[in-house]
Amino acid sequence: MPDKPCSTHQALLMMLGQLAAFGATANGGVARLAASQTDGDARDFLCEWLREQGGEVLIDRIGNILGVFDLGVGENTGHFFCGSHLDTQPEGGRFDGALGVACACLAALTLRDQVKAGCLAPTCRFLVVVCWTGEEGARFQPSLIGSSAFTGYLPVDQVLGIQDAQGTSLAEALSAIGYQGSATVPLPSHYLELHIEQGCRLELANKPIGLVTGSWGAKKLVIDVLGKPDHTGPTPMDHRCDALLAASQLVVRVHALAQLSPSPLHCSVGRMDIAPNSPNTVAERVSLWVEMRSASAITLEKTSVQLQQAMDEISASTRTAIRVSKSEDREAIIFDQASRQRVEAAWIREKIPHLALTTIAGHDAIRLQSICPSTLLFVPSKDGISHSPEEFTSDEAVCAGFDAMMHAMSALMEDASAMDSATGAHDHV
Amino acid sequence: MPDKPCSTHQALLMMLGQLAAFGATANGGVARLAASQTDGDARDFLCEWLREQGGEVLIDRIGNILGVFDLGVGENTGHFFCGSHLDTQPEGGRFDGALGVACACLAALTLRDQVKAGCLAPTCRFLVVVCWTGEEGARFQPSLIGSSAFTGYLPVDQVLGIQDAQGTSLAEALSAIGYQGSATVPLPSHYLELHIEQGCRLELANKPIGLVTGSWGAKKLVIDVLGKPDHTGPTPMDHRCDALLAASQLVVRVHALAQLSPSPLHCSVGRMDIAPNSPNTVAERVSLWVEMRSASAITLEKTSVQLQQAMDEISASTRTAIRVSKSEDREAIIFDQASRQRVEAAWIREKIPHLALTTIAGHDAIRLQSICPSTLLFVPSKDGISHSPEEFTSDEAVCAGFDAMMHAMSALMEDASAMDSATGAHDHV
Repeated sequence: MPDKPCSTHQALLMMLGQLAAFGATANGGVARLAASQTDGDARDFLCEWLREQGGEVLIDRIGNILGVFDLGVGENTGHFFCGSHLDTQPEGGRFDGALGVACACLAALTLRDQVKAGCLAPTCRFLVVVCWTGEEGARFQPSLIGSSAFTGYLPVDQVLGIQDAQGTSLAEALSAIGYQGSATVPLPSHYLELHIEQGCRLELANKPIGLVTGSWGAKKLVIDVLGKPDHTGPTPMDHRCDALLAASQLVVRVHALAQLSPSPLHCSVGRMDIAPNSPNTVAERVSLWVEMRSASAITLEKTSVQLQQAMDEISASTRTAIRVSKSEDREAIIFDQASRQRVEAAWIREKIPHLALTTIAGHDAIRLQSICPSTLLFVPSKDGISHSPEEFTSDEAVCAGFDAMMHAMSALMEDASAMDSATGAHDHV
Repeated sequence: MPDKPCSTHQALLMMLGQLAAFGATANGGVARLAASQTDGDARDFLCEWLREQGGEVLIDRIGNILGVFDLGVGENTGHFFCGSHLDTQPEGGRFDGALGVACACLAALTLRDQVKAGCLAPTCRFLVVVCWTGEEGARFQPSLIGSSAFTGYLPVDQVLGIQDAQGTSLAEALSAIGYQGSATVPLPSHYLELHIEQGCRLELANKPIGLVTGSWGAKKLVIDVLGKPDHTGPTPMDHRCDALLAASQLVVRVHALAQLSPSPLHCSVGRMDIAPNSPNTVAERVSLWVEMRSASAITLEKTSVQLQQAMDEISASTRTAIRVSKSEDREAIIFDQASRQRVEAAWIREKIPHLALTTIAGHDAIRLQSICPSTLLFVPSKDGISHSPEEFTSDEAVCAGFDAMMHAMSALMEDASAMDSATGAHDHV
């Protein structure tokens, strides 16, 4: 248990406020795109804090930050990872990502104090505060690039070559802010992440904490539409090959896929790049970023077929060429069940009300689960709003979430069977 | 008649090639946005040429370039203006605008030679080669800004304050390339412009030259859609206020307006600005640049009502706010009839096949017609393609068009009744 809950809570809320200052916008939001100068400033703040508190800071090739705290005890030399990310959407909020990093920082201090005081006998010697690069997929696509490279889901060199809309590669962007490292990093024996829910199930159920059982799958596509540039005035309507018209029809059809699906399906187009994007020129090229999310792989597969049909029909009727230029499949996953049982048992013991739920949004914990037992916790977010300056979780909810997380961590760290035996170094990033 | 048709044609084609080099793109097109550095380079080339040939170069407040040639004779001190523009669409062609400027340059030399040789007795003493600022409306909206300010259609200070998508004002952009002048400029007694047709009627009719009788009217709107930013994953579909979905529905409806109209109507959306335009965020704001063009004011009015109905319906069904933030009405106009008759008579005399037609695209001549008799001539453009690197008019068609233009100019300059008596200076720009 935290021995000084009040001062720890104060420190947690203060750190959350300090992180929110990096990229703060006038409307109370945060603009901190991955590997931007603002992200670099927030990273510097985190690294300085980690070092001041006695952590060893390691930066890997993809810019992931690891703050390693030696608890000085432990039956093995395992590393318990806890963290989240600091990047945000172009116009994001104060909690998505930053909350998990701040909670991990305060958890490290709390756990160290507990070990010193003899209240906790962890099975692993090291607690690692982690900040993953580019979780949001806003500046660099896909999302989860830091954890994808770390876990070997994507090749490191491929990820470093990903370019933003201006043609800057992730390697260049990381280098510019001093975060392309070369450290050999430890392998995690367990990963735990606390995040805002980005939905309103906890709020509706009036529960302070959620335990995520698994994630929906997702199919993310970039679709390119090629028309023919022409004058918007004199060109006869039936001679036009209007890429923006075709793209707009596709956006409408993508939305209809969700309405028509017999099983839950979330579809969206959040980004569209248009060229030449001049009021007087029929658009020649449009790229659309299409997402489809469902708990069911069969639903995603059926929907993909329907989408292809829509593309073919629109292509024919608008005389444009439409093709998928990028495709990413994120399979639905199940988080480690043994860990979930231990966490639930601890919360029941402590009389902490909780809810089991799935996540539709992607999180770094999804990638980590592929290499170690992973635990994802949610705290309520008001009205389920996220990726918005209006994103909000109250101080009380933040502190209640942190306390529940500490109980979960203690339970996971004390149970030897919850840990992998992985103790080797990890140098593929 | 040109006394050295071959060398004049060669000079004309050479100048056209030289102008096309400023902003030349790999695919044979031209990228020369208004008041860009590339536009500045092309302007420098033009001004140097005008001065070398003995013209006096005047730059007005809005950056219009006037090259004044004193023919040394003439019954009055009137100024016959001839020209077009040098700016292009973001990915435009070699002919739209530049052809009219090059033809005006060579016309000035040819007329001066004709006067010297005693073959032409013009009623006005000055021939003014003119290059209007920002005709395209690509970087700065609306289109026709140079001629609109010159003719008093728009206030000069308002036009100078117009900003591009990056927030740079026209005044700043002109100043950066050294083209915010202060010259007191002469008023035109007549304006003549040669332009590519941007349609395929001349090509289909196999005529070398077109005489434009009038223009379609146009209604140009900027429509703003305001939704609510949110996560594209977990946010329930029926909670979303998706500005990009609403905007896409609007693009589809705008296109349908043209299909459903009983009288000819051209509708388009060429530009859409989306924010935050991130794959994982439901779009909060979209602005659409909507155009509707028709020869009939009643059709435009009826269509505007239908568009408003579509906006209301889409706003209600998508839970977004949709409003018109800018609106421009360009009335259909008729070019000076007396001038047209004289030009036609000259062409009949010279056995030059020609076609009378209307223009759907806007041209600076439309603005000039409000202050002086104006003549707009078209040469064929292959397949009617314009605002595209594929824009093409053959050397033969260019030269035939130039020759027909020279006959038109001679006829207009020799007929005193074709001229306004305007001889005063003009300082409202």
